Amino acid sequence: MKDFTKEYFKMDEADVIDYARTRLVFFNQDAELVCKEIGDGNINYVFRVEDKKSNKSLIIKQAGPVSRISEDFVLSPDRNRIEYEVLSLHNKLAPGLVVEVYNYDPIMNCCAIEDLSDYQVMRAAMVEHKIFPLFAEHISTYMANTLLLTSDLVLDHKEKKALVKNYINPQLCEISEDLVYTEPFFDCPRNIIYPEMEQFIRENIWNDEALLLETAKLKFEFLTNAQCLIHGDLHTGSIFIKEDSTKVFDPEFAFYGPAGYDVGNVIANLIFAYANGKYMISDDTKRKEFLDYILKTMKEVVDLFVEKFLILWDDHVIERVAKYRGFKEFYLDSILRDTSGVTGHELCRRIIGLAPVKDITSITDPEARVAAETICLSAAKIFILERDRIKTGDDFVKVVKDVEKLYCNKE
Amino acid sequence: MKDFTKEYFKMDEADVIDYARTRLVFFNQDAELVCKEIGDGNINYVFRVEDKKSNKSLIIKQAGPVSRISEDFVLSPDRNRIEYEVLSLHNKLAPGLVVEVYNYDPIMNCCAIEDLSDYQVMRAAMVEHKIFPLFAEHISTYMANTLLLTSDLVLDHKEKKALVKNYINPQLCEISEDLVYTEPFFDCPRNIIYPEMEQFIRENIWNDEALLLETAKLKFEFLTNAQCLIHGDLHTGSIFIKEDSTKVFDPEFAFYGPAGYDVGNVIANLIFAYANGKYMISDDTKRKEFLDYILKTMKEVVDLFVEKFLILWDDHVIERVAKYRGFKEFYLDSILRDTSGVTGHELCRRIIGLAPVKDITSITDPEARVAAETICLSAAKIFILERDRIKTGDDFVKVVKDVEKLYCNKE
Repeated sequence: MKDFTKEYFKMDEADVIDYARTRLVFFNQDAELVCKEIGDGNINYVFRVEDKKSNKSLIIKQAGPVSRISEDFVLSPDRNRIEYEVLSLHNKLAPGLVVEVYNYDPIMNCCAIEDLSDYQVMRAAMVEHKIFPLFAEHISTYMANTLLLTSDLVLDHKEKKALVKNYINPQLCEISEDLVYTEPFFDCPRNIIYPEMEQFIRENIWNDEALLLETAKLKFEFLTNAQCLIHGDLHTGSIFIKEDSTKVFDPEFAFYGPAGYDVGNVIANLIFAYANGKYMISDDTKRKEFLDYILKTMKEVVDLFVEKFLILWDDHVIERVAKYRGFKEFYLDSILRDTSGVTGHELCRRIIGLAPVKDITSITDPEARVAAETICLSAAKIFILERDRIKTGDDFVKVVKDVEKLYCNKE
Repeated sequence: MKDFTKEYFKMDEADVIDYARTRLVFFNQDAELVCKEIGDGNINYVFRVEDKKSNKSLIIKQAGPVSRISEDFVLSPDRNRIEYEVLSLHNKLAPGLVVEVYNYDPIMNCCAIEDLSDYQVMRAAMVEHKIFPLFAEHISTYMANTLLLTSDLVLDHKEKKALVKNYINPQLCEISEDLVYTEPFFDCPRNIIYPEMEQFIRENIWNDEALLLETAKLKFEFLTNAQCLIHGDLHTGSIFIKEDSTKVFDPEFAFYGPAGYDVGNVIANLIFAYANGKYMISDDTKRKEFLDYILKTMKEVVDLFVEKFLILWDDHVIERVAKYRGFKEFYLDSILRDTSGVTGHELCRRIIGLAPVKDITSITDPEARVAAETICLSAAKIFILERDRIKTGDDFVKVVKDVEKLYCNKE
């Protein structure tokens, strides 16, 4: 058996069984452990370990020395420390809405995490067009709590600065800075573009100087605005879901950034689900039901987030100057402006950049694929360029519906 | 002799002589050292050590365990590390414009610094109404270089984040958050108010809700905008000056914050010098000469800063998106907006808050004192409320002249 206490190495399935048996207080002594690597993300190795006797199971997530998506990204294993600490903190701030984490090992750079085999990764569920009526309720609570309660509004500013320092996350932030804020907006070799879309992208994204200027402003917002501890990668692939429960995971991109980054990611990924449903559900009734559900969820995510944020504000804000008349509205307005801008960025980067989403790539018919991508990118432009006026759930929904109408009339 | 290598203690003059003799490689072996505590700042002990034989001298600056201005401020001695590192960095970024630093001692929490006995602290020189025609040239270079060259515009973003982490400065920032951004704007027991001004302050500052709202926005800008490594306390008491040379010192408040904070502090403290000159120079010709010099300097500080910032931009900016058309203008605009807001804050906090300036307190005639303070506070309101439109040196000067005209006509 290898020594897990001296020096990091990348574990295989057999190593993980030894590790779980000897380094974790979780399984019974007579456990019959089996292990399988089940990771499909871009940057970690994920193992599921199960005791065939007791049926107890857990997940071991190990940071590799480089990203799985591209060896260009050499990543500090410190990200697993960040993930462990954020999950622990978020479990306190938003109990029941985050996966539980049992252990963090700074030598092997791995976490032991709750196994949620009875849940599904939300993106997979969206591609199957499943409906989760409680999702908006859950995710809006998660976001309002984790964002507001880690901000200068409620924390002693010295304590907040200690958290900023603890969550400085240079390498993972660099990935977002490059993939979300830079590469989608020029003809970068690393982009993955659907060939039929290249002309549209060139004309409407890369050559739109007014759009580019706004993306630069939003990039600097991301680089400099240490507003609150954000998840940093809150797409539907970072959420486990089942009918009555939603659990966020994978906060390894967490750092002190703009609150709107998380909200915008949720909205944009709902729009991908919408685009998929629109072109991949053949049954008219089912399609309408799913699309209505997605739009309703978009609206609720924004409106419930605002509603809960305002309630938390009244209960928790201790910063004296934040209580001046008009400041609450100003602050929330700025979050919604960022939310709209980030929605646009996430839409662009998943269509143009290095990390496409299955919602879009699984649309097999070429015309449908072009239609879906055109709708997403056209909405993206409005979300970025007109972010000053997009404030309510209805405003967000209307952007999608307007763009859809315009495109479908053109057809 | 006490042991300087084991544990921190607050040194007296005799200790400092022993320290300089045994712990620093600066004086000759046969030096005849004399030492005097010369500090008049609010938070440190400053000793001048001189060798009577060679005339060589240096400054030893030791952090006390609490602030000298008020025991309310318990300060981490880490501020001397920050001071040492910032001075070292600034000497590279703006050579000749910063005091030299020879040594930092993390046990005794002290720095050994260049002795500038042939210079004068600029505030003292301003109160004597001296004229330094090169000041605007020097300080604008210092600010453009240190601010732009530590930003995400020119640094690799990972390197910048390491600097943000290194300069997290919770306790000193808290002082600014409280004294600059909070206490001057309500009837705080710690404020030091000239009794004849209380009614004006109550009516025009504390009861102006539109003003308060803007101060809250500016406080959150200070709390969250990690734009560049700022000096953090760049008033005329942090500047040594003589006819042909300007040297900045005391960067212990440094942290990653909004660039406009430094520029605004310089402008506001020139306005204090102006107010002093207006009421304390009896000779008409001399008064006119000094006031013209101050207004010219204000104009030049802004315009030369902008000019040099733009030249540095073209030579040094490596961030791809910052090169999009229009971004340079947007970025500089946001710095000037902050500059105007901070000018207003510094004017308010020195008139209302815990740390008044000699330029104002040395105005002995009560009517003149009231006039000077009224002009400063009236200008402050415009700088804060109308910061969106105040962009050029002339705009800054015009605020002062307009307020002055209005007040003097009322008289």
